[in-house]
Order: sequence, then structure tokens, then C-alpha cells
Amino acid sequence: MTLHDNMIEMGDRAVAAARALAVKSADDKDRMLAAMAAALEQGRGALKQANALDLEAGRAAGLSDALLDRLQLTDQRIDGMVAGIRQVVALADPVGALLEQKVREDGLVIEKRRVPIGVIGIVYESRPNVTADAAVLCIKAGNAVILRGGKEARHSNQAICDTLLEGGKEAGLPHGALQLVRTTDRDAVRELVQMQGRVDLIIPRGGESLIRAVTEMAHVPVIKHYKGVCHTYVDDTAQLEMALAICENAKCQRPGVCNAMETMLVHKDIAPQFLPRIAERLIARGVELRGDEASREIVPQMKPASEEDWSEEYLDLILSVRVVQDVHGAIDHIARYGSQHSDAIVSESADAQQLFLQQVDSATVYVNASTRFTDGGQFGMGAEIGISTDKLHARGPMGLPELTTYKYILRGTGQVRS
Amino acid sequence: MTLHDNMIEMGDRAVAAARALAVKSADDKDRMLAAMAAALEQGRGALKQANALDLEAGRAAGLSDALLDRLQLTDQRIDGMVAGIRQVVALADPVGALLEQKVREDGLVIEKRRVPIGVIGIVYESRPNVTADAAVLCIKAGNAVILRGGKEARHSNQAICDTLLEGGKEAGLPHGALQLVRTTDRDAVRELVQMQGRVDLIIPRGGESLIRAVTEMAHVPVIKHYKGVCHTYVDDTAQLEMALAICENAKCQRPGVCNAMETMLVHKDIAPQFLPRIAERLIARGVELRGDEASREIVPQMKPASEEDWSEEYLDLILSVRVVQDVHGAIDHIARYGSQHSDAIVSESADAQQLFLQQVDSATVYVNASTRFTDGGQFGMGAEIGISTDKLHARGPMGLPELTTYKYILRGTGQVRS
Repeated sequence: MTLHDNMIEMGDRAVAAARALAVKSADDKDRMLAAMAAALEQGRGALKQANALDLEAGRAAGLSDALLDRLQLTDQRIDGMVAGIRQVVALADPVGALLEQKVREDGLVIEKRRVPIGVIGIVYESRPNVTADAAVLCIKAGNAVILRGGKEARHSNQAICDTLLEGGKEAGLPHGALQLVRTTDRDAVRELVQMQGRVDLIIPRGGESLIRAVTEMAHVPVIKHYKGVCHTYVDDTAQLEMALAICENAKCQRPGVCNAMETMLVHKDIAPQFLPRIAERLIARGVELRGDEASREIVPQMKPASEEDWSEEYLDLILSVRVVQDVHGAIDHIARYGSQHSDAIVSESADAQQLFLQQVDSATVYVNASTRFTDGGQFGMGAEIGISTDKLHARGPMGLPELTTYKYILRGTGQVRS
Repeated sequence: MTLHDNMIEMGDRAVAAARALAVKSADDKDRMLAAMAAALEQGRGALKQANALDLEAGRAAGLSDALLDRLQLTDQRIDGMVAGIRQVVALADPVGALLEQKVREDGLVIEKRRVPIGVIGIVYESRPNVTADAAVLCIKAGNAVILRGGKEARHSNQAICDTLLEGGKEAGLPHGALQLVRTTDRDAVRELVQMQGRVDLIIPRGGESLIRAVTEMAHVPVIKHYKGVCHTYVDDTAQLEMALAICENAKCQRPGVCNAMETMLVHKDIAPQFLPRIAERLIARGVELRGDEASREIVPQMKPASEEDWSEEYLDLILSVRVVQDVHGAIDHIARYGSQHSDAIVSESADAQQLFLQQVDSATVYVNASTRFTDGGQFGMGAEIGISTDKLHARGPMGLPELTTYKYILRGTGQVRS
């Protein structure tokens, strides 16, 4: 059987499973997930054995220590996966929620209700815990899921998937509801993202290059998280101490994540007071500053920023700095170089705040707070499958409701249209 | 200047206009739309002159009478466009609506609010009234719009667009908020649907071939309305008179539209009573019946249905008919041949109803009513830009809220993440 035929069969099984999942109650699904968590907890020996094979192959292939660390399944990480599943069990089931209801004069009742999307494909890189995290969120929302992980983690992913299936099966998980693409053939990704009619949505999880590659090949809709080039704009009306604390936090608290600040924009009138003080604090935290000319006149220790710096997601202790005319200048800069992820204004002016909130076209816009809060957990979603930088369907942190769609349900007593 | 550069400039103007529209109040936008309606009303002479050029060219090119009719702008149709704009003015502004709100323990306020999508491209065929209808809906929802109409209607479309702009401009419509692609170069469509970063969404309006062509070329998200292969399943528990009335209405009341029934599925146990009676009624209304073997044994006048019939959108007085085992058989048939548009069950069994509603994966599912109600107007939306057969972002009839997205707005007093 060819790869193509294999993938089509996988898709057909997923479609059938999605139909079976559509009639499962919240309790049914929670029982499946609880059984999957228990199986992982009890199967940790097998998981670690499989993981050892991946680590060995990774070392032989010369993977960096950072990659080997991401790949490793420790007891603590297995406990984390198990706890993660149990958290998802505790979340409310989004399926069936009544979003709108109308009763027409002729008595026809129109309901708009949340329903599962159907079949979701997840394409991800080396962290094996995504296998459990993503599968469980999709299934909780009533979707069948097809996983395609990175080849470095293939033994670990298979072991996790097999263990989840073992637990789930006994609790009634439909055949085909959770499937892992087991071949390492790269063409399998192309097949997966081109299965219109069998796959309803692709969510790639990984670096920008993975996401671009998937998007370019896809015929199925893709929800993308390109990158987080997040800005903080310090207005001339900002409270200085607040601006200092917010900028330091947004840059330094965890620089390697997508909601960390990468560019700081400063109103020209506050720059002479603000820039020397923030520079001192950031340099003390080990941050490398790259400024435009106006910034460097005030803080000569800054390196010069190049045009490329403005669109760079450093994910590191580096910050680009620019002096702008006013809030309009900040909005222009963000429109040109931003990634529509998370951007903040620090300002005491209601007008400037409002303009910034309305005109900055990003998933999350902040007044007087650190951009570091853009996160499903911080937003109270309970669990997050990713952060969308798209504008359609889902924007910003994506939880369970974003893994659903809706349908209109009309209940009549023989109504016809006249 | 090349076509590509022209389109890019158009996109840049639209992006700037979208930013200007984002700060307009509901009243601001309504004033613009009211002025546009008034201008159309007063400018009807120019519209009819321009339309005469299109009709003349159409006749010379040998367009069918049906196409010439669709192309024609009569006083009544101009009145219809004007009335349509005034209806949109009367609708509530979806922008700014608070969808969710949370206050964190640290006092950070998280709001999820509706915002415009940004720039919407509409690609449509010969009806010139779409120029006004689509433009007005997009602008009401705060979006800049780029229109690309069919070349048969180009003089009419230009006249409508110029008239709308003339009215809108005086009332503060931002430059670039409404633009029409004036070249008839077919490559302009490709450019338009590939302008990521400048166009956020494409809505094609027209036949399936237009929609497929646009979708295949597009790099920008497309919301699609492929076709309506709508089913009515008559269960063995159906009330016979109700089933007769629903099926006759769904097929005959207006056969040329997407929510008309194209295939009737009948439970094997009710077929011997039901089929002769419905056949009599439908044949009396001029319907051609194409049945499977089991149906033809009961009603020998039916022509045999071919495999192709099951996926055909006739848009005509033709109906394919199939006898099925039970509700599962009906669900299987719809999953295989349906278009995820509108499907109905006529049944008195709560179990069969529930199974059908949950397992038929269509935008609109009905119990005991005609599929002809799938329509923004019938749903109480006030106006409709189309009916989506997609599952993401918008499903079923699309009104103003479906022309928006949301953003998260966080308001703090200096909150940082610890």
C-alpha cells in the first residue's frame, strides 16, 4: 500500500471516529481521558525505555544539549503530562453549549450550538509531551486527532500514543479517534495537510519554518502561530516607575518565549528621562540593547539597530529600541514590523490608550501591563493548544472552545417556507 | 506601473483605511452609509446609462437572456439596493461588543471584544447589485473592502462604486475604504487573493467554478460556499402528511437556490406508503424523479439515478431519491455525498432526531422543517453576505458578526508577571 493510500485510510478512520465522538457525553469523554492519564502513569517504565532509544539516536546524530533536553522524558515530565490530562478532564466540555437561540413567529426554533470541528491534524517538533497534551485537548472537544511528531522523538511518541490508546480503548475511545503517523517519510506531512474532506484543520506547533512549510503545502485550513515580535510603547504621559517595571518584566522575566518584548518604542519627550534609567536596569540584567540613532544619542552604549532588527524575534536577552514622535508613530511602527501577537502601551492618556487599543491590529493589546500575560493559563482558559496570530476563527491563546465550531439546529413541527 | 504594483498600492490604501475605520463610531459609519444610499438614489440616471453600455456589450457578446436579466439595473433594482443599504444602517453595529470579561486577582482586566477583520476582498460575478450590498456590509462591520466584479458588469459596477464613493466621501468615508478593481485583467484576481498582510479575507460570490478557482490561487483565507446538495430524510416514524408538505416545499418552493432539496432519503419501512404519494405530488409540480432501484420498484415512473446524481446540485425541478435502511443509512449517505449545507430529518423518534442532529456534519440541520429556511433573512440576521459551507470562522448564513473577529484587550495598573 502506498503512503497516499495509508494516509487516506487513516483519514477515513478519523472521520468515522469523529462521527462516533459527536454523540459522546462530557462524562463519556472524561472517562476516556481519565483512563488515558492512568495508563500513562502506570506505563512510565515503557515510556522511559522508548525515550532512551530516542536519546541514544539523538546523541549519535549529534543533537545539541538543548534539543536532547527537550527530548527527554523524566519522571517529572511524565507526571506533568498526567497532571495536564487531569486538568483537561476538570475543564467544562465546550460541546453542546448554546450560543444563540431564536424562536420564529411560526414556532421554528433556531439554536446555534458549539459542536466539534471534526478531524484535527497536529504537526509538531521534538517535545514528546505534545503527543499527550494536544491529543487530549482535541478529544475533550470531541475531535478525532491525527498526530505527526518529529522524527527525533518517534519512539517516545509511539510509546505515549500506544499507552494512551491502551487506556482509552477500555474506556470506550472510538477506533481512529487518536492516530499517530508512524512513518518518518516527510511526504506524510504533505499528504496529511492536503486531505480535504478528511481533515478539517491543521495546527502546526513549532518554529516559524515548520509553520511556513505546512502552510505552503496545505489545502486544509491551518491556524498559525508565526512569531511574537511584541512591542511596548512608553508614552510621554507614562508613569516612569510603572514603565520601568513593565519593560523590565516584559523583556527579562522569560526572554525565550513568544510574549516577551522584542522592541521598545519610546515617546521622544520622555526618552531623555526614561531611556538612561531603563538602559541601566536592562544592562544590569544582561540585556543587549540595539537602538536607533535618537536612542543612541541618549544612551551611547547601545549598539546600532539595523533594519532587520525591527522584525526580529530574538527569544533572547536582546532588545531593539526606537524613539518615536508620538502614539501614531508607535502604531505605524507596529503595523509595519509587528507580528500581530501582543503589544502594550504604557500611558496615562485616555486618548492615547484608546487609539492604541483600536488601531494596533494584534491578538492581544495591553494598557499599562507586561505583554507576558498572553497565555491560555494566565487568561484562565485552563489549557492552551497554542496562540494564534491569525485573525479568523481563533485569535490569541486557543483553549477548548477554539477547538470547536458551531452548527445551526432548527426544530420544527412541519414548518415550510411560503 | 505594473498590475502587481497597482494592486499592492490598492492594498496599502485599504490597510490605511481599515486603521481609520477602526476608530469610527457606529454613528459615524451609519452616516457614511446613509449618504451612500442617498447618492445612489439620486444618481440613478448615471447608473442606468452605465448599465446600458454593459447590456449593449452583453447583447453583442451573445449573453443569454437569463444573464442579461441578471445584469440589468432597473429602477426597481436600484430601489432595492438603496433599501438594502438602509436596512444595514438600521442593524446593530457588531464592533466593540464585549464577548467575555474576566478580572484577575491581581486586578488585570481581560476583555474579549469584537473588532473588524481589516481588509476584505470580494470576488463576484455578473449581478451589479453585489457591488453595493457587499461593500455596505463590510464597511458597517468596520472593514475596508476591495471589490472585483465580473467584466460583463464593469460599467455598472464602476458607476455604482463611484456613486457610493461620492456620497461616502462627504460623510467622512476614509480614502481607500471602498475600492473597485477597474482593470479587466484576469491576473488581478490572482494578485488580490495572494496579498497576505494587505488582505485578511476573501469572500468569493458566485458559482462553484469561481469559488474553486479563487481557493486554489489564494494565499489569503477564503470563506467558501461551494454548493448546496441538501437532503431530507423521511424516517419510518415520520408523520406522513408533514413529510409530504416538507418535501414538496423543500423541492418546489424555489428550486434554483442553494437550500432547496436535491436528494430525498426514505426509510425502507415507510417507502411503500410514502413514495407513491410524494411522487404524485412532485410529478404534478413538474419534478423529474431519479431513483435508486428500491425506489423504482415502488414508483416505476422514476428514471434511474446514476452515481453522479447523488452529488449533483440540480438547482432545478429534479430530485434524486433513495431508499435507506434507517437513520444510520441516511447519515452515511449524507456524509458521503452531502455538501455540509442544510439537511433535514422528518421523524417522531427522539433518538433518531438526536442522532441525525449530532452526526450530520452540516452548517444547518433540521428536525421536521423544510431546508428552505437556511438564509440570513429567515434567521433574523437582517442581511447576509453569503452562506458558508466551511467549518472554521463562519458556518451557515453569514451576517455582520461573521465579518468581524475579536481581540483581547488587557487593562492594567502596572501588572507584571512573577
